[in-house]
Amino acid sequence: MTDPQRSTAPIDFYFDFSSPYGYFAAEKIDDLAARYGRTVLWHPFLLGVTFKVTGLGPLPGIPLKGAYSLHDIARSARYFGLPFRQPSVFPIPTQHAARAFLWIGDRNPQKARAFGLAAYRAYFVDDVNISDLAAVLDIAARIGIDRDELSAALAGAEIKTRLAAEVDLGLARGVFGSPFLFVDGEAFWGADRLPQVERWLAEGGF
Amino acid sequence: MTDPQRSTAPIDFYFDFSSPYGYFAAEKIDDLAARYGRTVLWHPFLLGVTFKVTGLGPLPGIPLKGAYSLHDIARSARYFGLPFRQPSVFPIPTQHAARAFLWIGDRNPQKARAFGLAAYRAYFVDDVNISDLAAVLDIAARIGIDRDELSAALAGAEIKTRLAAEVDLGLARGVFGSPFLFVDGEAFWGADRLPQVERWLAEGGF
Repeated sequence: MTDPQRSTAPIDFYFDFSSPYGYFAAEKIDDLAARYGRTVLWHPFLLGVTFKVTGLGPLPGIPLKGAYSLHDIARSARYFGLPFRQPSVFPIPTQHAARAFLWIGDRNPQKARAFGLAAYRAYFVDDVNISDLAAVLDIAARIGIDRDELSAALAGAEIKTRLAAEVDLGLARGVFGSPFLFVDGEAFWGADRLPQVERWLAEGGF
Repeated sequence: MTDPQRSTAPIDFYFDFSSPYGYFAAEKIDDLAARYGRTVLWHPFLLGVTFKVTGLGPLPGIPLKGAYSLHDIARSARYFGLPFRQPSVFPIPTQHAARAFLWIGDRNPQKARAFGLAAYRAYFVDDVNISDLAAVLDIAARIGIDRDELSAALAGAEIKTRLAAEVDLGLARGVFGSPFLFVDGEAFWGADRLPQVERWLAEGGF
């Protein structure tokens, strides 16, 4: 247990841009954290890498669970009061969006957050396939990022190494899903754990 | 959407006696349902059968997710305000307990509920291995069930066929986990969906 009077450590928020539950958490986590005097460190993550470790796979392909999940995702969006449309291509590879997030974040963390929310909304509200590099560059350009500069960075080796290291670090911390949060070292998986996160923040553990 | 003024249909509650999240839901669902004028039909279920269909397996054996889940289970018990001790043998086969539940329920549904809660508490609070037939008979005897009569029934073919049919019916309805609930045909999986169940009951859908 930590003392809620004392801990002001940022919350770590891991998410995959192809994860609808990650989208729900992305829309909620900053406000939730702020109510308890916390900030949030956003960590783009690749679920495909965890699937190799856990032996699991994307939800839609799992018998029974896949069909339920598509229904639960749409209902959960309504429950959270968030706009949502099931993307016509789902799930998708999200390396471009994740690398763009990291590159923008190294220059301006607030802009990275704006990019993250814009990319999530593009995919889960406007059915834009953000696995497409051009779509990612368009979204970044609309929030004031230099398109050519970002395009050159995403073509380079450095940002690929950077994302791989971020994902490796997440795996080393035990991240296997999206959203995945750490509050003072305590791990929470799933948008449905936000009430537990809130109680943890309010009480400094329970 | 159903009209909350009109629907009084019972809630269907599927559970496996080896599922800690099923135990949490079992402790909560009757009171939750009663607040909205509903009753609950309890359906013992065997997750092992669904694992063959979904290709999934018990949580503890899954890399990363297994370790997290054991931590989440204990924390969720505290969140729900329920006593809990991680059983020393977990998970376990639960055919005996499920069949005993059905046999008791055919004679007295209220006693079956009492047996269900007693079996869950024996396993998840007192670390009694309820895969053991003698343990199941002891629990039943303590709530006033004739031990010899139940023992004879559990040795027979009829109750085995009965449980197999119950599990097949659950699978046909899409049940793949525990707890799994149906409210007016709407499916909810997981103790973490109880807030959505409550809103569904309050608003007649959302």
